[in-house]
Amino acid sequence: MCNTPRTSYRTLICADWVDYNGHLRDAFYLLIFSHATDALMDILGLDEAGRSRTGHTLFTLECHINFLAEVKEAEQVEVRTQLLAHDAKRLHIHHSLYRVGSDACLAQSEQMLMNIDSAAGRAALFDAQIADRVAQLAAEQQDLPRPTCVGRVIGLRR
Amino acid sequence: MCNTPRTSYRTLICADWVDYNGHLRDAFYLLIFSHATDALMDILGLDEAGRSRTGHTLFTLECHINFLAEVKEAEQVEVRTQLLAHDAKRLHIHHSLYRVGSDACLAQSEQMLMNIDSAAGRAALFDAQIADRVAQLAAEQQDLPRPTCVGRVIGLRR
Repeated sequence: MCNTPRTSYRTLICADWVDYNGHLRDAFYLLIFSHATDALMDILGLDEAGRSRTGHTLFTLECHINFLAEVKEAEQVEVRTQLLAHDAKRLHIHHSLYRVGSDACLAQSEQMLMNIDSAAGRAALFDAQIADRVAQLAAEQQDLPRPTCVGRVIGLRR
Repeated sequence: MCNTPRTSYRTLICADWVDYNGHLRDAFYLLIFSHATDALMDILGLDEAGRSRTGHTLFTLECHINFLAEVKEAEQVEVRTQLLAHDAKRLHIHHSLYRVGSDACLAQSEQMLMNIDSAAGRAALFDAQIADRVAQLAAEQQDLPRPTCVGRVIGLRR
């Protein structure tokens, strides 16, 4: 058990990632979360060796991002990652972005990932060893609170 | 009136945008959509000159992306953009991604954009000229069908 999501990735904000406003461009929040998903794959045993052994990889099916605060060039940020739910071939995950040393959330992203047999190009059940690690992470994180932005629908009131 | 969304952006898929699977990485779908949002800003008069005149810009508050098909390096793609709804300071928009010459949708993204007074760093009503252009685009696109992925919630059935 643990009482905080796992810190999965840290990076400096590169000059290439800021837009004409001088702020981190929307797509590069997702690039940071994408690298955090790679780190989660390492945690679950789907690193390069694991992908080679199983023939499996993860694809992002769907994601939702809430941009909560501006981030500027050269700031150091970290992603904290939480497994919300899973089944035999999918992971419902949540990433949140913070400045290193701060607990003020800068952005949240909820994502659905699918386990894919790379050769067949089709969804596949998790390999047994990977499924064990998924279950272990789910057990560790089962008491974490549900992040605030999970389950949102985008829209304007009529 | 028009019967298709407006083509807002075309690009080749760069080598830097593909991941270890040889496919466009999730974040770079959003980068393409982000450039399409820049193009929408040009259409609405919030290009560099318009941002300078009004002191306003648009920030992405929230987005949802559905990844529907793989895209490979060197493919040529285009974004078609639709204004779903708006109020006095927000735009609810939808981008869809296609290979040039095809109508098979590769990805969809629904986004909420907020008009921001750059100096104050706060939400602001659209400038009158911009509001006119928003209303004109909304009128042109009012009969377009609602895209299939609008309004989705991410989750696994229990």
